Amino acid sequence: MYQTMKKNKKKIKASILIIGNEILSGRTQDLNISFISNWLNLKCGISVGEVRIIPDVQNTIIKNIKELSTNFNYVFTTGGIGPTHDDITAKSISKAFKVRYEFHKEAYSILETYYGKIKFNDGRKKMAKMPRGSKLIYNPSSAAPGFIIKNVLCLPGVPSILKSMIDNTTKFLIKGSVVFNKSINLLTVESNIARKLGIIQKKYLNKVDIGSYPFFRLGLIGVSIVLRSSNKLKLNLCHKDIQKLIKEKKIKVFKN
Amino acid sequence: MYQTMKKNKKKIKASILIIGNEILSGRTQDLNISFISNWLNLKCGISVGEVRIIPDVQNTIIKNIKELSTNFNYVFTTGGIGPTHDDITAKSISKAFKVRYEFHKEAYSILETYYGKIKFNDGRKKMAKMPRGSKLIYNPSSAAPGFIIKNVLCLPGVPSILKSMIDNTTKFLIKGSVVFNKSINLLTVESNIARKLGIIQKKYLNKVDIGSYPFFRLGLIGVSIVLRSSNKLKLNLCHKDIQKLIKEKKIKVFKN
Repeated sequence: MYQTMKKNKKKIKASILIIGNEILSGRTQDLNISFISNWLNLKCGISVGEVRIIPDVQNTIIKNIKELSTNFNYVFTTGGIGPTHDDITAKSISKAFKVRYEFHKEAYSILETYYGKIKFNDGRKKMAKMPRGSKLIYNPSSAAPGFIIKNVLCLPGVPSILKSMIDNTTKFLIKGSVVFNKSINLLTVESNIARKLGIIQKKYLNKVDIGSYPFFRLGLIGVSIVLRSSNKLKLNLCHKDIQKLIKEKKIKVFKN
Repeated sequence: MYQTMKKNKKKIKASILIIGNEILSGRTQDLNISFISNWLNLKCGISVGEVRIIPDVQNTIIKNIKELSTNFNYVFTTGGIGPTHDDITAKSISKAFKVRYEFHKEAYSILETYYGKIKFNDGRKKMAKMPRGSKLIYNPSSAAPGFIIKNVLCLPGVPSILKSMIDNTTKFLIKGSVVFNKSINLLTVESNIARKLGIIQKKYLNKVDIGSYPFFRLGLIGVSIVLRSSNKLKLNLCHKDIQKLIKEKKIKVFKN
């Protein structure tokens, strides 16, 4: 009937910056946003406050890095750190932070060992160039490391490689505290419960965050009610009020 | 080996603003971005220049609506136009544009007819409230209309409903002209072609946009090369240069 998970309390907020024309054009379905956001929530107690998807354009990357790194505790970027001409994330971030774009010795050595001296061509060498002062985010699947500079963490766009690297970002992150989360799936429509739900939300204003999301599943129409709070007592009280509403309205609960 | 599609020439740019905590938290995988972007590209010759995903917070919505509606020809929003307390898109946009948030007569009438007078409760009535001056985007699947105010088009978050409504936005949009697109899938790694591809990109700078995207499919590692241009002649010349590169490097083409 409900799940309880760890969420953020000490409010640490991240943003995600997806860099890539292929996502913007709709050619490629993004899978990284929900993965990173879930991972940050569950593993680090960090919530994502904003996501942006932007093209491979230097000035656009610079502008967004400046804004997001100022407004959030962390910025996670994906894409644009490969070997080709359209991979301009590292160079653009160097410009955003006004630091040199140069070979990172350890990254160079990792890639040289991985490819061997003969096959270590210019494209591959490019993957060792980063903003001065970067620390490496190791890549267990295809060697080319990501990097962190200030509060910006740069990861590749290929989902399987990104997933293999994400745990290596943990050591750079300050974790948020536990926030709890309960969800109930109801076989009703939103407009049947909207008024009462609004009253309950007012009662727990700034204590419990109540979200309401319609769903269509297995031929059934329903609404997921999601409660989030760092205060377990208030969360449980709010949950009881929701259960009372369900009884009053004689609504069926959908268990899946 | 390659596809040709219509793309924008007269540069008309849209942005997409996804409003909803459920997408930001990673709880729900977004499907609307790639759908809207593809639809705009193929049906309208409009390209998407930026996407943002933001929470259901009034000031955040206001700030983003102001920025995006200034910087782009169109803004497509999804989410937050249902009957519950967390549906605050219409009210926030009214505030962004400093117009009244009030009942839209036609929307009210559509919803009253759909639900019948007795079942037309306050939550359902809320879905008829919009910024003054809005025009309706009709909804063939669940009645509740979207709306357009200035250059901002507001659609629901549920993908199936959004899809059923998207064609009803066409009459509000100025179309861009044709841009052509060719893609070639190569069984190689990016770093094998990065240098030569960079040289070709320089040759066609500002004429043809060359994108390079690694893929892993059916156990194969490859790179998709995507060429985009409004100049068909330059596109074909660039395509020939890529084919020459493929021959020189003896790279296999992946047909799917």
